[in-house]
Amino acid sequence: MNLDFRSDNVAGVSPAIMAALERANSGSDSSYGGDAVTARLTARLRELFETDCAVFPVATGTAANALALASAAPPYGLIYCHHEAHIANDECGAPEFFTGGARLVGLEGDHAKINAAALAAAVAAAGVGEQHHMQPAAVSISQASERGAVYGVDDVAALGDVARRHNLVLHMDGARFANAVAALECSPAAASWKAGVDVLSFGATKNGAMAAEAVIFFRPDLARDALFRRKRGGHLLSKMRFLSAQLEAYVTGDLWLANARHANAMARRLADGLARLPGARLADPAQANEVFVYLPDAMARALEGEGAKFHRWGMDGLVRLVTSFATEAASVDGFLAAAARAVPRAI
Amino acid sequence: MNLDFRSDNVAGVSPAIMAALERANSGSDSSYGGDAVTARLTARLRELFETDCAVFPVATGTAANALALASAAPPYGLIYCHHEAHIANDECGAPEFFTGGARLVGLEGDHAKINAAALAAAVAAAGVGEQHHMQPAAVSISQASERGAVYGVDDVAALGDVARRHNLVLHMDGARFANAVAALECSPAAASWKAGVDVLSFGATKNGAMAAEAVIFFRPDLARDALFRRKRGGHLLSKMRFLSAQLEAYVTGDLWLANARHANAMARRLADGLARLPGARLADPAQANEVFVYLPDAMARALEGEGAKFHRWGMDGLVRLVTSFATEAASVDGFLAAAARAVPRAI
Amino acid sequence: MNLDFRSDNVAGVSPAIMAALERANSGSDSSYGGDAVTARLTARLRELFETDCAVFPVATGTAANALALASAAPPYGLIYCHHEAHIANDECGAPEFFTGGARLVGLEGDHAKINAAALAAAVAAAGVGEQHHMQPAAVSISQASERGAVYGVDDVAALGDVARRHNLVLHMDGARFANAVAALECSPAAASWKAGVDVLSFGATKNGAMAAEAVIFFRPDLARDALFRRKRGGHLLSKMRFLSAQLEAYVTGDLWLANARHANAMARRLADGLARLPGARLADPAQANEVFVYLPDAMARALEGEGAKFHRWGMDGLVRLVTSFATEAASVDGFLAAAARAVPRAI
Amino acid sequence: MNLDFRSDNVAGVSPAIMAALERANSGSDSSYGGDAVTARLTARLRELFETDCAVFPVATGTAANALALASAAPPYGLIYCHHEAHIANDECGAPEFFTGGARLVGLEGDHAKINAAALAAAVAAAGVGEQHHMQPAAVSISQASERGAVYGVDDVAALGDVARRHNLVLHMDGARFANAVAALECSPAAASWKAGVDVLSFGATKNGAMAAEAVIFFRPDLARDALFRRKRGGHLLSKMRFLSAQLEAYVTGDLWLANARHANAMARRLADGLARLPGARLADPAQANEVFVYLPDAMARALEGEGAKFHRWGMDGLVRLVTSFATEAASVDGFLAAAARAVPRAI
Repeated sequence: MNLDFRSDNVAGVSPAIMAALERANSGSDSSYGGDAVTARLTARLRELFETDCAVFPVATGTAANALALASAAPPYGLIYCHHEAHIANDECGAPEFFTGGARLVGLEGDHAKINAAALAAAVAAAGVGEQHHMQPAAVSISQASERGAVYGVDDVAALGDVARRHNLVLHMDGARFANAVAALECSPAAASWKAGVDVLSFGATKNGAMAAEAVIFFRPDLARDALFRRKRGGHLLSKMRFLSAQLEAYVTGDLWLANARHANAMARRLADGLARLPGARLADPAQANEVFVYLPDAMARALEGEGAKFHRWGMDGLVRLVTSFATEAASVDGFLAAAARAVPRAI
Repeated sequence: MNLDFRSDNVAGVSPAIMAALERANSGSDSSYGGDAVTARLTARLRELFETDCAVFPVATGTAANALALASAAPPYGLIYCHHEAHIANDECGAPEFFTGGARLVGLEGDHAKINAAALAAAVAAAGVGEQHHMQPAAVSISQASERGAVYGVDDVAALGDVARRHNLVLHMDGARFANAVAALECSPAAASWKAGVDVLSFGATKNGAMAAEAVIFFRPDLARDALFRRKRGGHLLSKMRFLSAQLEAYVTGDLWLANARHANAMARRLADGLARLPGARLADPAQANEVFVYLPDAMARALEGEGAKFHRWGMDGLVRLVTSFATEAASVDGFLAAAARAVPRAI
Repeated sequence: MNLDFRSDNVAGVSPAIMAALERANSGSDSSYGGDAVTARLTARLRELFETDCAVFPVATGTAANALALASAAPPYGLIYCHHEAHIANDECGAPEFFTGGARLVGLEGDHAKINAAALAAAVAAAGVGEQHHMQPAAVSISQASERGAVYGVDDVAALGDVARRHNLVLHMDGARFANAVAALECSPAAASWKAGVDVLSFGATKNGAMAAEAVIFFRPDLARDALFRRKRGGHLLSKMRFLSAQLEAYVTGDLWLANARHANAMARRLADGLARLPGARLADPAQANEVFVYLPDAMARALEGEGAKFHRWGMDGLVRLVTSFATEAASVDGFLAAAARAVPRAI
Repeated sequence: MNLDFRSDNVAGVSPAIMAALERANSGSDSSYGGDAVTARLTARLRELFETDCAVFPVATGTAANALALASAAPPYGLIYCHHEAHIANDECGAPEFFTGGARLVGLEGDHAKINAAALAAAVAAAGVGEQHHMQPAAVSISQASERGAVYGVDDVAALGDVARRHNLVLHMDGARFANAVAALECSPAAASWKAGVDVLSFGATKNGAMAAEAVIFFRPDLARDALFRRKRGGHLLSKMRFLSAQLEAYVTGDLWLANARHANAMARRLADGLARLPGARLADPAQANEVFVYLPDAMARALEGEGAKFHRWGMDGLVRLVTSFATEAASVDGFLAAAARAVPRAI
């Protein structure tokens, strides 16, 4: 039984996406995005997001975030984010690299979400217009958050209001955008540009693609540079149709939401089961496909002894468990059963 | 009939590589290169190159080149290359971006190849050690060249000697390394590090992969930074096994050389046929999988009228035709027949 | 009466330094540092620091810090400093610019000083060697600190030990190095390299020069790049002798220490006087030439009403007062008298 | 007798500028450009240039050029210049550094001047809008040129037309702007913005200042970033009044033009004298304060033997002689006499 809950990127590729890759592999087609698949993808994403957005497919989430931020902040810009954000902790400085030296400002906030008040306070303290200080330029939020929580549409809109008031670009790191939309049960448009998002990293890799994300600009002025920055960053794939084919399959017939709903349901099942165990305590609401839970060390070790895999998140017993489109209910139940067996030892 | 000779990247994916992707898609595995496929790939490449090299798979040739050069040149460094080099003309400044502002110096040379004498002269004129001037740091050669020519092993060794004498890193842009090795009929080691190459962009995409290249460092001191620069550049794939699987299949059972030999043979067939046509004149030796030929404009237009696709290379009638692993002899013959039909109009 | 305590850079130029500029203005001399004055300066600084250091004069403290850090940290490096550090708050991202995107990590610590334990803990949490994370590269301390406190030689040595253990470069921002050395009553060598400092921004501007600092490398391997980075940063003065002449005069006959001792004494006199006033409370030890004091708002306003100038430091009544080589005792006494007059209103 | 013709930066400081520095050294004043001198300087330069320009004083010409170009070109931008331009050859990559990796494209042209036709041809070949190629962004011309020639106002206007047609920023490196204006006998406005110049590096150091230049933006949209880029580059002087005082004295009562006229006259005298010598041959018109002349090697060595100093410019006997505000007619005559004495040996 697969008890691997380390990440949603330990999973493979959704069968429908693999099939799309096979289909794309016939004959020759224009390279570098001049192909028919990429054209269809752009049209489909505009339909899905109900707006005339600019679309730049890339192979990694870090590339998507970094390109988005490079269009959002000058080299002397400040980018506000939660201090636990992926861009701040897990991208080895990609935002600094692509922006030419902008700075991330880590804000506090429950469940790895920032809020409008904290953002407004930070901007107020920044010294806008003063030559000695880097200048507020952008806000980046992770949807779902690094702690598996989901911003409500109103939360995003409140941040969007502050952003607009201070002329900041609002970026959404949507590596798990599908999981968030599935949780919010709203339209992609409502979850993004209608709530004030200017540029979205639209993730697919964690939710069934092989290596496919898209930077989606809802403000055309921001997209101007991106064509050149993508190439310059080495992120323009020559056989682009194989990247676009993944994304096209992903947003065809609701695959993206179906995958995300499944992953979310598995996380819910896991969280609910763990919450009932003596000694275990949920640290964050499991609104998307991640469960953060405090486990007694003996329980964590017992689970590992039975072959379960997951990440220790800090040193105080906090554990992260991630589900994906490929997670089977039996695996969740198997994990919960193993955890239950460990209860006597753990308490 | 497929008369698309625009590039080797208009072709799709080699069946064996597609099959490897299917095989890699089972169960879960460690992400970010901690997987079994990546481990096997590294071992296989060390065996193939007969040395303990460091291997960094990435998805694009531009990324491979830029990461290689970032390890080779400081921000104030000069990188010598042919003025027609891909890094100079077709990567939108990726070398400048990844190095933090190093400068490319375009040298002259027949068939888009540079030579040791021109390199030595350029270094001699650079003002080594003088604070006003950027400092010689690296040489980058394209193997095969942008004009479809192949450096002899001795040519490379002569450049390697100059490089070593002046403490320059020798980088080989091997986007078409397979085609060159197939032409040279030597070992990969003889074509690279034994001739003085310090770091190689080992291409696979143009020769049958979907999106897969590898930066291969033959000097461990140069590889030190690359782990962090790759991630920082957004070039570390989370589901790395699918990238490594492409490369593993590529270097298994000589697929890479078989594909290259076929492409080279098709280019040879095309070049030989064209050379026999009145009015056509080969511009460069077709030693790899590219044919550069001057065609009468009427002939070029007639060919396009029959559905043939190729790039006009400048304004004087020069045309580039590229073959690939997927090019069929019938396509070559069809192209030649169409060209022959156009002769009366062309002369 | 001059009641301007805003900063030590509101003062002018020490007469001896002005005289040196006049003297330097005769005849022609080699440009870009090839002149006799620069040669003498380097020799003198090596004598003063009792070691064979490398010296790079520049015109601003920000340039000195940024060049020092560019030699100390790669683009993916982490630079530890106090969160109130000048490099973090008042240089508009110069460290990020010159390093190519390294990141500052702000540590806590009383009186704007960091300590060895906090540094060690931060390094331990950084994920050394892990590709997702920026890598610990350097520590930067301000001597004297942004709050007018002075690191003891032992404090520096403790930080130096941690730095060496983790292969970090230890940078000292010595914009007020003279004030610190005057306070410590030790040799410049003891205050710097003997305590583990690898590179020092040796300030003169705040202490009587017109525009003159020097980056002093105590590790020759770190200095290798600096020659080119200085020029590339636009910080190589063509008529260098006028920059070197300032520094030469500064370190001739103890001018630098005499100026600093005077400034420190004036700060001490100011701090002592304020400490005696009802309602005023010193926030930090006034060990160098800055006084941080909480003043009742009415007192602060009254002082401003009498023409005194100083910076409000945040919103809770904290005020910064800075003295310099040019501060007269009468000014200090005048300020204290005005403050005393304001006591009745303030309490 | 001073026979030092190596450069105009081997000279010292104009007495009037030295006096201004002395005057500025009284009392305390606001730092970082908030002082009265800087305010007066800005007003004066707006008057002199007859327009509401933005003024950023800095200490070096490299800083001025690099800051100007950073506002003019994105990281993926092309900057056209003459291949002998100072920004291309003598600034160790400062343009690349400050722009974040833009690329200089060296054009041909007599006497180190480019022309509108060559510029238009280069832009036409650049691939505007194509993602693979860096994008035309700016033109930079040196006035006077690196070979001592002066662009006519019409030449500049023709370049300005091409620039505007292709949306390029026109930058003028005016390290020797005064010499050019003196030669042109036109107004500073006519020589700059009225002819299409968008941003000017207004030099003073080579013409009598100690270390003072100004970036002058004639287009306010370009100046937006410069406030932050200057600080971030370490080019905001804390005791700014001493920098501004130099520039103020420089543009007061025509000192700048008087100095330049003298330097030009000395160059003219030198060129005329050399032109009459058998064996010597002028390489470029000596329109400003530089003389480029082919000298027989025996003559050059004889001159050096008599204590004359100058730069060998390449290996074919070309020699550069530079005059300045401080060059005395007796020195020129002395040099010519020595050269005349060497004629018998030289021919």
